[in-house]
Amino acid sequence: MAEHNEILLKKIQEQGDLVRKLKAEKESSEKVINEYSIQDLGEFDKYISQYSYINGYTPSKLDFEVYNNLKNVDLMRYPYVKRWWCHMRSFSNSEITQLPFMKPPDAVKLILNTNQNRDQKIKEEVAKLLALKAQLTNDAPPQKFVLKTPKGTRDYNPQQMAIRNSVLQKIISVFKKHGAECIDTPVFELKEVLTGKYGEDSKLIYDLKDQGGEILSLRYDLTVPLARYLAMNKINNLKRYHIAKVYRRDNPAMTRGRYREFYQCDFDIAGQFDPMVPDAECLKVVTEILDSLDIGKYILKVNHRCLLDGMFEACGVPAEQFRSTCSTIDKLDKSPWQEVRTEMINEKGVTPEAADRIGEYVRLNGSTELVDKLLQDEKLSKSKSAVEGLQGIKLLLEYCELYGIKDKVLFDLSLARGLDYYTGIIYEAVLTEPIKIGGEEQSVGSIAGGGRYDNLVGMFDTKNKQVPCVGISVGVERVFSVLEARLAAGELSVRPSEIDVYVASAQKDFLTTRMRICNELWDAGIKAEQPYKKNPKMLNQLQHCEENGIPLAVILGESELKRGLVKIRNIVTRQEDEVPRDKLVEELKNRINMLNINVNGLEK
Amino acid sequence: MAEHNEILLKKIQEQGDLVRKLKAEKESSEKVINEYSIQDLGEFDKYISQYSYINGYTPSKLDFEVYNNLKNVDLMRYPYVKRWWCHMRSFSNSEITQLPFMKPPDAVKLILNTNQNRDQKIKEEVAKLLALKAQLTNDAPPQKFVLKTPKGTRDYNPQQMAIRNSVLQKIISVFKKHGAECIDTPVFELKEVLTGKYGEDSKLIYDLKDQGGEILSLRYDLTVPLARYLAMNKINNLKRYHIAKVYRRDNPAMTRGRYREFYQCDFDIAGQFDPMVPDAECLKVVTEILDSLDIGKYILKVNHRCLLDGMFEACGVPAEQFRSTCSTIDKLDKSPWQEVRTEMINEKGVTPEAADRIGEYVRLNGSTELVDKLLQDEKLSKSKSAVEGLQGIKLLLEYCELYGIKDKVLFDLSLARGLDYYTGIIYEAVLTEPIKIGGEEQSVGSIAGGGRYDNLVGMFDTKNKQVPCVGISVGVERVFSVLEARLAAGELSVRPSEIDVYVASAQKDFLTTRMRICNELWDAGIKAEQPYKKNPKMLNQLQHCEENGIPLAVILGESELKRGLVKIRNIVTRQEDEVPRDKLVEELKNRINMLNINVNGLEK
Repeated sequence: MAEHNEILLKKIQEQGDLVRKLKAEKESSEKVINEYSIQDLGEFDKYISQYSYINGYTPSKLDFEVYNNLKNVDLMRYPYVKRWWCHMRSFSNSEITQLPFMKPPDAVKLILNTNQNRDQKIKEEVAKLLALKAQLTNDAPPQKFVLKTPKGTRDYNPQQMAIRNSVLQKIISVFKKHGAECIDTPVFELKEVLTGKYGEDSKLIYDLKDQGGEILSLRYDLTVPLARYLAMNKINNLKRYHIAKVYRRDNPAMTRGRYREFYQCDFDIAGQFDPMVPDAECLKVVTEILDSLDIGKYILKVNHRCLLDGMFEACGVPAEQFRSTCSTIDKLDKSPWQEVRTEMINEKGVTPEAADRIGEYVRLNGSTELVDKLLQDEKLSKSKSAVEGLQGIKLLLEYCELYGIKDKVLFDLSLARGLDYYTGIIYEAVLTEPIKIGGEEQSVGSIAGGGRYDNLVGMFDTKNKQVPCVGISVGVERVFSVLEARLAAGELSVRPSEIDVYVASAQKDFLTTRMRICNELWDAGIKAEQPYKKNPKMLNQLQHCEENGIPLAVILGESELKRGLVKIRNIVTRQEDEVPRDKLVEELKNRINMLNINVNGLEK
Repeated sequence: MAEHNEILLKKIQEQGDLVRKLKAEKESSEKVINEYSIQDLGEFDKYISQYSYINGYTPSKLDFEVYNNLKNVDLMRYPYVKRWWCHMRSFSNSEITQLPFMKPPDAVKLILNTNQNRDQKIKEEVAKLLALKAQLTNDAPPQKFVLKTPKGTRDYNPQQMAIRNSVLQKIISVFKKHGAECIDTPVFELKEVLTGKYGEDSKLIYDLKDQGGEILSLRYDLTVPLARYLAMNKINNLKRYHIAKVYRRDNPAMTRGRYREFYQCDFDIAGQFDPMVPDAECLKVVTEILDSLDIGKYILKVNHRCLLDGMFEACGVPAEQFRSTCSTIDKLDKSPWQEVRTEMINEKGVTPEAADRIGEYVRLNGSTELVDKLLQDEKLSKSKSAVEGLQGIKLLLEYCELYGIKDKVLFDLSLARGLDYYTGIIYEAVLTEPIKIGGEEQSVGSIAGGGRYDNLVGMFDTKNKQVPCVGISVGVERVFSVLEARLAAGELSVRPSEIDVYVASAQKDFLTTRMRICNELWDAGIKAEQPYKKNPKMLNQLQHCEENGIPLAVILGESELKRGLVKIRNIVTRQEDEVPRDKLVEELKNRINMLNINVNGLEK
């Protein structure tokens, strides 16, 4: 049995390696434009024997992509491929530039390394892996396991918690300054609540096992639970904040603060109000938070979904392609325009002409003067939707001026945001400078985002009753990462325990005396502790105070106690004073107030 | 298709009803001692035709249980049952009392309504239900669903969150006073981490669906994650608190504060220390928390696992039955001794004599004098384990005296606690008086519990290295329930928003002026808001202040502004004062300080 299991474990490992390799290949292929290469040369040889080029009798850039990706191939074995290859080689660079983009015909698709083919292959191999694993579980449970937290998650140790609590406290105090109330929702929802809200990303939702009863999933964000809460309770008006963990089965990049379990800090204003008034306040809230966290310079990019739609319309994109084109635009923060353009044309079916027109617009950014210019734009001014969006942004910028934050706001036509549910203004806060930690620069990028979603609550209402909403979400995990890196680099110190007084003893058999004094201090509200050992060493006790930033120690000794005295030691200055035993509490309280302890600068 | 689905939905509903009915029957049968009744009279008639009594030729209390549960039966149809029935009727009460307890023979078990038979039946019917549901999912997803939170969970609205945050804040400040550091762990763990830690209760663990990758479960408590954390990070010393939600697929009783998703507030001290020093501090922490929450009188019951083991040993229970007997004792807080005794004998295989001896001990409770008496007890003093437990309790009580809490501690031999992992002292805090809410009394019962678990961390260490731990867990959901009931009864008021100043306007077209003033207040750190509408009505604005407990309003009017003035209104006294526009911030800050606002008494 044990041997059988070992064989099985080995098979599982091999199969796991294969799946990982395939996934890595797919991932790396997603990063380059040249996604077309030949999977099966024999098949390609057969195909090309009947044609001059991949698309029949017209050469295209596709031929060149495939040609460029053909490396170290024994062309003697594939005569028709060789003929085509020699032909491709004869093209001059200027000729190649003039060739049109074309999509591969279906017959060729099957023998290309497209991501679709890769996905199919991965799916098959994952199924095999799961079957092997199931066999293992049926046979016998594996005896040992690695002690770890689940993939993409982590524990927070006391230092990290001190950082986390201090960051959240700052954020909460801004939320409260703006009158937000706090709500909380369960960590899981009925699966149906989440269905159809996240588009392609739905595959990242964690489902619970069906153990009889309801079918449940872990929440993916805090916005959909808010919409469910509003619809369920028939609430039309709410300014709320919600700070909680959400769950996404994404590929984690934990060093950069990307986890599968992570905090979101959301502030939303629900209700039917005058245009852009709550929208502008959300931006004000973001600036106050980023200023109080003090993690570097930032800008607030804004755009409007109506302007995006109007822009697509003006550029000749059919209405049914708006959403998918929009999600391609969203990649502009990570990829250059050329790549985005290629994806638009090859995958989203946008014509090259339309794509180039879009390209003209998305490179624009500015402020009110750009809005005014675009309101005069020949094409955009004809689109009702574009004009609506531009007027919205103009009003928002006015209000931002009132709120003293206009210099931080950048109207940017390339901002798109991935989620389906936005209907109006969209925003994103981006750090503009890499953060220096321990001499190294770390790029943080987007740190908050949000927008208006007027139709989401209606999706939960039987009568489709709408409650317009606008909100922002602060990506605190990135803030935590930056501060943790500073902590590791020694640029920040935190104090996880808040003890003010350590009750120590210099001689043996003082345990009960120490306990009695601790009790007195606790009852007086003083944060105090003592060694849990009967006869601790003096040096260890003082060391404990130094390591934990405890500012004061009460030191008990027989001779002092006989004289009705105890010693108070200031750990930093090392000064010791004798005070009357019966004035101890009073004396300590005075000293604690005087010290006005705020050692870590993070948390009081 | 739609019609087919409707039929399916109807079938699912019927099957669901059946399952619920069976489960309810089972549950109600668990509450009565008389668990034996006849399921199939025809079969019983056949069986009893060959014997005098159920157990052959000796009458027993089992016969009487079955006899008593036989109601409205047409005995003419079952001649042998009738013969047996008439015979049973002839016994006198005193004769019945003297009959022995006996278990039913296997042949009879099959025709009795035992819970085992019920479980089997329920299992079969649940399987049918799931099959029907699966059919539905394969066919087509149901089009509508009820908007709700998952079973056993709830949203927290702003009032409830204000209560929750205030309760947690009080608990955290006690934890911090004792020097506890904060940690957090992921909401899910590798399933293996939880396996084998909770005994019978493991069936209540929520599993995540296998979506490829690791097999995960939601955390069931905060103790096992702590042990995993200590072992994984090789930490030997930690005083930590952890406040987080845990998950149990239990039958919820939400009105009494029992949920499937609920908060635990844990305080634990890990490390090798002198006996009972950290254990006593845990009790001190509990008293400080319960005193600060001020929810009524309480006692802290304590007992010791070694004493329980020693007691079982002294009473003649074999060692392998210690744990199961212990879990029966644990039911003494809900059931009378007679029931517990029956379960011990019938289900756990304890002899009646041993059970009666246990019964003598578990009715005892007291303080140091009881410990001294038991140390002299003929049977207990011979058990090394019992003496160890008694000496531990004696030392604990001494330390409790030092900590000024001895009058709140009750040494109670009936306290057992269900969890397998305890190895030393165990505690439970119980409210001693029902709480009066809106004239009605509500019984709360156990509100905190814990104990020592010295072997749990070792279960995670490859070399089985132990880290002794002791801790307590506060059942805050019950506290929340009590306070929410008080809120509902009007005996408590909370203020979910902390706004100090509302910026209102009496005339039209003051939106931008209000926004400008709000901005000034925010930048000065004042909690302020304004209506998001252009032209709100004065009455609505003042009403908003009253409803939300906002103490101050700035009222803008054209005539005042022309004179360089604004009005400040005290919402409670309705007094209005004109102050210079440029002194507004200063004036408001003074008034806020003067009011020293603490309207709700719960949260600052």
